[in-house]
Amino acid sequence: MPDAAPPAGLLDRLHALLGPRGLLTEPGDIAPHLSDWRGLYRGAALAVARPADAAEVAAVVRLCAEGGTPITVQGGNTSMVGGATPDESGRHLVLSLARLNRIRDLDPVDMTMTAEAGVVLKAAQVAAAEAGCLFPLSLGAEGTATVGGVLSTNAGGNTTVRYGNARELMLGLEVVLPDGSLWNGLRRLRKDNTGYALRHLFVGAEGTLGIVTAAVLRMFPRARDTALAFCAVADEEAALALFRRFRDRDEGAVRAFEYMSGAGVDFAVRHIEGVTLPVAARADHYVLVDLASSRPDAGLREMAEAVLFEAMEAGLVLDAALAESEAQAQRIWRIREEHPEAQKREGASVKNDVSVPVSKVPEMIRRCSAALRELVPGSRPVPFGHIGDGNIHMNLEQPEGMDPAAFLARSHDIMDCVNAVVRDLGGSFSAEHGIGRLKTGMMADWRGGAELAAMQAIKAALDPRGIMNPGRVLP
Amino acid sequence: MPDAAPPAGLLDRLHALLGPRGLLTEPGDIAPHLSDWRGLYRGAALAVARPADAAEVAAVVRLCAEGGTPITVQGGNTSMVGGATPDESGRHLVLSLARLNRIRDLDPVDMTMTAEAGVVLKAAQVAAAEAGCLFPLSLGAEGTATVGGVLSTNAGGNTTVRYGNARELMLGLEVVLPDGSLWNGLRRLRKDNTGYALRHLFVGAEGTLGIVTAAVLRMFPRARDTALAFCAVADEEAALALFRRFRDRDEGAVRAFEYMSGAGVDFAVRHIEGVTLPVAARADHYVLVDLASSRPDAGLREMAEAVLFEAMEAGLVLDAALAESEAQAQRIWRIREEHPEAQKREGASVKNDVSVPVSKVPEMIRRCSAALRELVPGSRPVPFGHIGDGNIHMNLEQPEGMDPAAFLARSHDIMDCVNAVVRDLGGSFSAEHGIGRLKTGMMADWRGGAELAAMQAIKAALDPRGIMNPGRVLP
Repeated sequence: MPDAAPPAGLLDRLHALLGPRGLLTEPGDIAPHLSDWRGLYRGAALAVARPADAAEVAAVVRLCAEGGTPITVQGGNTSMVGGATPDESGRHLVLSLARLNRIRDLDPVDMTMTAEAGVVLKAAQVAAAEAGCLFPLSLGAEGTATVGGVLSTNAGGNTTVRYGNARELMLGLEVVLPDGSLWNGLRRLRKDNTGYALRHLFVGAEGTLGIVTAAVLRMFPRARDTALAFCAVADEEAALALFRRFRDRDEGAVRAFEYMSGAGVDFAVRHIEGVTLPVAARADHYVLVDLASSRPDAGLREMAEAVLFEAMEAGLVLDAALAESEAQAQRIWRIREEHPEAQKREGASVKNDVSVPVSKVPEMIRRCSAALRELVPGSRPVPFGHIGDGNIHMNLEQPEGMDPAAFLARSHDIMDCVNAVVRDLGGSFSAEHGIGRLKTGMMADWRGGAELAAMQAIKAALDPRGIMNPGRVLP
Repeated sequence: MPDAAPPAGLLDRLHALLGPRGLLTEPGDIAPHLSDWRGLYRGAALAVARPADAAEVAAVVRLCAEGGTPITVQGGNTSMVGGATPDESGRHLVLSLARLNRIRDLDPVDMTMTAEAGVVLKAAQVAAAEAGCLFPLSLGAEGTATVGGVLSTNAGGNTTVRYGNARELMLGLEVVLPDGSLWNGLRRLRKDNTGYALRHLFVGAEGTLGIVTAAVLRMFPRARDTALAFCAVADEEAALALFRRFRDRDEGAVRAFEYMSGAGVDFAVRHIEGVTLPVAARADHYVLVDLASSRPDAGLREMAEAVLFEAMEAGLVLDAALAESEAQAQRIWRIREEHPEAQKREGASVKNDVSVPVSKVPEMIRRCSAALRELVPGSRPVPFGHIGDGNIHMNLEQPEGMDPAAFLARSHDIMDCVNAVVRDLGGSFSAEHGIGRLKTGMMADWRGGAELAAMQAIKAALDPRGIMNPGRVLP
């Protein structure tokens, strides 16, 4: 840490502003904030600021802006792409929003909730449920990820096919801008066409344009009828065809539609306690169909049985199991949710969070799998994810017996291999995880020219000193 | 027009670029492009450029950027706020997108349509329907308004409650930037988290940051079951309570939910050929409930009957009529759609396109109506619109027998009167019509401070010469 001396007096002033609870300076207290959970990055920091409210966040930003001190913003620190950890320079102040954890307002008539940035996603779901409503955003890290984080990264997850990404669930924002001014845009309006959509600019900007301190979130009526099916399907095309059949039959009822490969389900059954195969025989391709409706008499189970029967007749579905209880439904969901953990226990794996137009998913999976097997002989493709959104986690598990480090040394080749196919199919190299530090190098190539120039112009206009999350998003 | 001389050679160069079909210079040809349909504005222009494709649009913008010639962008010229007509200086070039009217691509698997900016909204709806799909955006001007216009203004309309505004129906954009560069962001992806959401910045920017030349639009499965009810309800609270009952019963089925006042329905019945009252007795408050599902066996009519029966028992609904045929449904919809025309035939009226949180709609209607009657004795409030979105057109009809000009001279007082109540309730002074030229003066007051400063910084960054639609959106 050669260049790690803070601007004179900054820490004293932060201490005076925030008090001892609000500023961590001991190495042991700071350490948990310096590395990401995937273990990709380990950085350093001047200190960790933990302001208690939006006014304190603004004051911290003003102090940093004065001396040009870079800020790394941190929510639950569950980024998949190193978005929330400081770099190695030791010059950054980590700004944690953990103490902004109040739900300020919840209105079941407006179907809105005003939540601060540090509210954990699961807590937002629970608050909605306690009011008889649904906050639908759901993803693996929901027990740790925060409202500010999922908005700043425009998180997706399992229910995007029905309710959209974090962006679509947001009506208004409160944001501290890079000059330390506070914008109160917490409007609870479904329609408001008064100037530029600033709120949409901050969503997905990963904290590089300002710090989201609170948000107005949309809620929905809770489900009163549900059905869940686990299906073995003939191939990738059959998985897509089955999605289309459910979508056409009752578009509003498809709450989630997940694809899993035979290999991924094998790993889950092998490594995860309590996970068993719900259908009689192993297959190479599976889907999970999750249906829900606010209508108690929607008859989703009968509808699912009818669609699956027709799909079996058409040769798309080989076998299917319908959950008989909520407990059984949760066990089936575990097969999908434990995919990351099962892959970890099986060995080293390289993750690819890519998307293509929905119609191209089967071709993408086939071509990527073949190319990856050729690139690393013996490696095992584990594609899984949100086929209804065109978003597949095109992961690759190491060959059995190979040295994990030797396999991980091929990470960039593996990512390039997947991305070449994805690009050929008009896809994206980051569907729902964002850019963070991991993928900034790809921005110039994929989003270059007029698009990147416009992004850089906006960044320079709003953050001329470049103090907000430098090294993230833009190359 | 003192300052109307174009930069030397501009018209010659435009003529050479676009040919005689692509450049209108005769006063008689230009005239239809100079005034808005509401008759609020009449401007002047150097000429009207009608480029044939995005490359020609880019070339026109480059020529204008060179000499600093301001551009007024025009789609269907159906703006409610003077957004698409040039100012009185005569220095503007009007750039019409009417010839960019191709649907480049339509994919019923991806449920996407790539449409050029000049495609008329109705044509986009028809193209979707011919492919067995639904493009849900629907509004009064749909026979003239264009894809580029509805995106640039983030148009709303009748189906926002179910499908969102134009913004939510857009996945990708092609945009000519103020420097004349062309950004191809026509990605057909449901998920793509790669940098700032530029597409959301251009939607609703009313052409002040660049010119949308094409868009990827989302489609949905078409409705296979529908039901339509016209209800006399007890009061404003009852209208909202009935919306909540339908939303809780089957949130995904509420395609539109419209409130109408007794006065507005009276005007429609009085002035519009073929419009009759579907219920037995006149009331002071009505709602139109439009239900739709892609499920053929959704049983929406039975559901509607059950909800309405319970609501009658609870005293919310006084009387209700369910449409027995598609023709009857269309006749009922005409009562709502002919509201603007009926108001015009009744006399002069002042329009207010405002929104509040859904829960505040009844209070907003009551307080505005009382304040307006006090402000202009004998005047007749005609609130109607999208109660499910909190968006009410809080219009005011002149007193019977009053001189229309004298009434219209009170326009600003009337708008201020409504806006004072709306602001007190946390609402917006422009819900779905945008800012245009009519409402720029309100931006500093309502969106001032950090918000307006950020908008101005973005404008300066992307359009440093200020040639794109000057005088629109920002004060």
